[in-house]
Amino acid sequence: MLDIFNEIRDDLQAVEDELAKVVRHENPLLNETSSHLLNAGGKRLRPAFALLSGKFYNYQLKSVLPLAVALELIHMATLVHDDVVDSALTRRGKPTVKAKWGNRISMHTGDLLFAKSLLMISKYEDKPLVSKVLSKTSVKMCEGEIQQISSAYKSDQSIKDYLYRVQRKTALLIAASCQLGAVVCGAPREIYMRLRRYGYQIGIAFQVIDDILDMTADQVKLGKPIGGDLRQGIITLPVIFALKNSSNRELLVKLVEKRDKTEEEVRKAIELIRDCGGIKYSNNVVDRYINKAKKELENLPDIPAKRILVKIADFVKYRSF
Amino acid sequence: MLDIFNEIRDDLQAVEDELAKVVRHENPLLNETSSHLLNAGGKRLRPAFALLSGKFYNYQLKSVLPLAVALELIHMATLVHDDVVDSALTRRGKPTVKAKWGNRISMHTGDLLFAKSLLMISKYEDKPLVSKVLSKTSVKMCEGEIQQISSAYKSDQSIKDYLYRVQRKTALLIAASCQLGAVVCGAPREIYMRLRRYGYQIGIAFQVIDDILDMTADQVKLGKPIGGDLRQGIITLPVIFALKNSSNRELLVKLVEKRDKTEEEVRKAIELIRDCGGIKYSNNVVDRYINKAKKELENLPDIPAKRILVKIADFVKYRSF
Repeated sequence: MLDIFNEIRDDLQAVEDELAKVVRHENPLLNETSSHLLNAGGKRLRPAFALLSGKFYNYQLKSVLPLAVALELIHMATLVHDDVVDSALTRRGKPTVKAKWGNRISMHTGDLLFAKSLLMISKYEDKPLVSKVLSKTSVKMCEGEIQQISSAYKSDQSIKDYLYRVQRKTALLIAASCQLGAVVCGAPREIYMRLRRYGYQIGIAFQVIDDILDMTADQVKLGKPIGGDLRQGIITLPVIFALKNSSNRELLVKLVEKRDKTEEEVRKAIELIRDCGGIKYSNNVVDRYINKAKKELENLPDIPAKRILVKIADFVKYRSF
Repeated sequence: MLDIFNEIRDDLQAVEDELAKVVRHENPLLNETSSHLLNAGGKRLRPAFALLSGKFYNYQLKSVLPLAVALELIHMATLVHDDVVDSALTRRGKPTVKAKWGNRISMHTGDLLFAKSLLMISKYEDKPLVSKVLSKTSVKMCEGEIQQISSAYKSDQSIKDYLYRVQRKTALLIAASCQLGAVVCGAPREIYMRLRRYGYQIGIAFQVIDDILDMTADQVKLGKPIGGDLRQGIITLPVIFALKNSSNRELLVKLVEKRDKTEEEVRKAIELIRDCGGIKYSNNVVDRYINKAKKELENLPDIPAKRILVKIADFVKYRSF
């Protein structure tokens, strides 16, 4: 668990226990894949956002718990499915479900986790906004994934194209986590929409940082090989900036569009991107989103949860893995 | 459209139009995959069950339409995902999404269709049973798929194991179609539970027939190669019967458990299964379920929809593709 979550340690533990209960299964194979996923960890960022947002109005753990579990299940489901299609062999330094059990089991494990999230969500009969927001979010998340595939290895992309994908891949689920954490505690629209906007900005920043780290991080800390996005043809913000601003634009286009790049070609592409300021530019974009996120919090009551949300914003900015 | 659906022709057309609208998409690739799926047809059995069941109580098309569309979307999503994992190259005689566009697009197309079904379902805020039943059904459908993979090529299976899978693969979604068609029209529990039980029995019969046809049908009519289940190691009812009753049990065990069977081996296995009465036995099981299904209808009001449900039961029994 991240240190900044100390104040919600017990409630996050309750989420963890409930997650373990939900993924337990009579089919031994399924039990194994799901537990493997659970034990592979993760920051439990989405449950934490839901819990913290709930604190802004009549917080009760039992109101937020099914939501928090559902959010992590949705997130885990997308990770397993990403692994299927990306042929990724490790995630967070551990072998993926796909690497251990193959595509067929991975896909159905993802489907099952997603279906179980629906089971949790269906408990909120008196809060129809929960299923409305999460079903819309799920549709958009799928659209983002497909857009990412359609646009792979294409060097003529705009920042707008990038933001479209980042919004769908990451920001909308974090926005939903913040919004719905407040919604399930009965918060009024004014509060939950502010939290939603906070989550949205943080989500964009989080993904941009992720894309930066994919080129700059310590491979061991990151738990996966550097340059993975470039290898898969995913065009991220530093690349888009560099494709416009690099003095060696032609070579970069060639490298970016090339399939099955060698280690040397990946290294060279990253060098070109860094040298023309692609990383620095992207870090500035992160700053802007982090500041916008913090600004959304200004008009919310000054409770401990708010200070943690501010800290999370800073953590996102300075994280190195 | 099947002739027996003549009486609900207009409403089924409305479902078709709405489906086309729902799968239309701004991403051209996605538009193409979804439309391809839609145009590949299908009997629209689940929407038809929902519409017909709605007729037993205060029927209004607009009450059933989102449900009918959602049911078909869920069904289509499972078909696309089945194609991913089964490496199937044709379905209903047309190339599958997977064969045309590959695994990555197929998986996300399936995810998207499923997410869109949630969007439809979230319209029933005043009928929480809809999302409760469908989320439970989805969980069980995934369990069935995984159970099918875990038990592939295993010859020591009981009829109970088989029914567990058939229930999850097929019967529960048809049961839900019948139940919820009545639920969304406001029918009382007594009516919708009868319809649910009808759907459940029909669903089992439907899948057993499917499994029989996989060995006995005309390949052209079926739209896919004969013996597909045997090839994929899926142990169906005729096989289970034959594994107990064949005079050449040892050879059958060997053939069933063998991966990458030749055409000749598949043909031989089917011959052994047929010769010891595996097909006949399975047809008797179908009869029993069809009769149970019809029995459930007895205490329902004698409306035209009821006569169609009886006809569907007979159609399931005598269908040859």
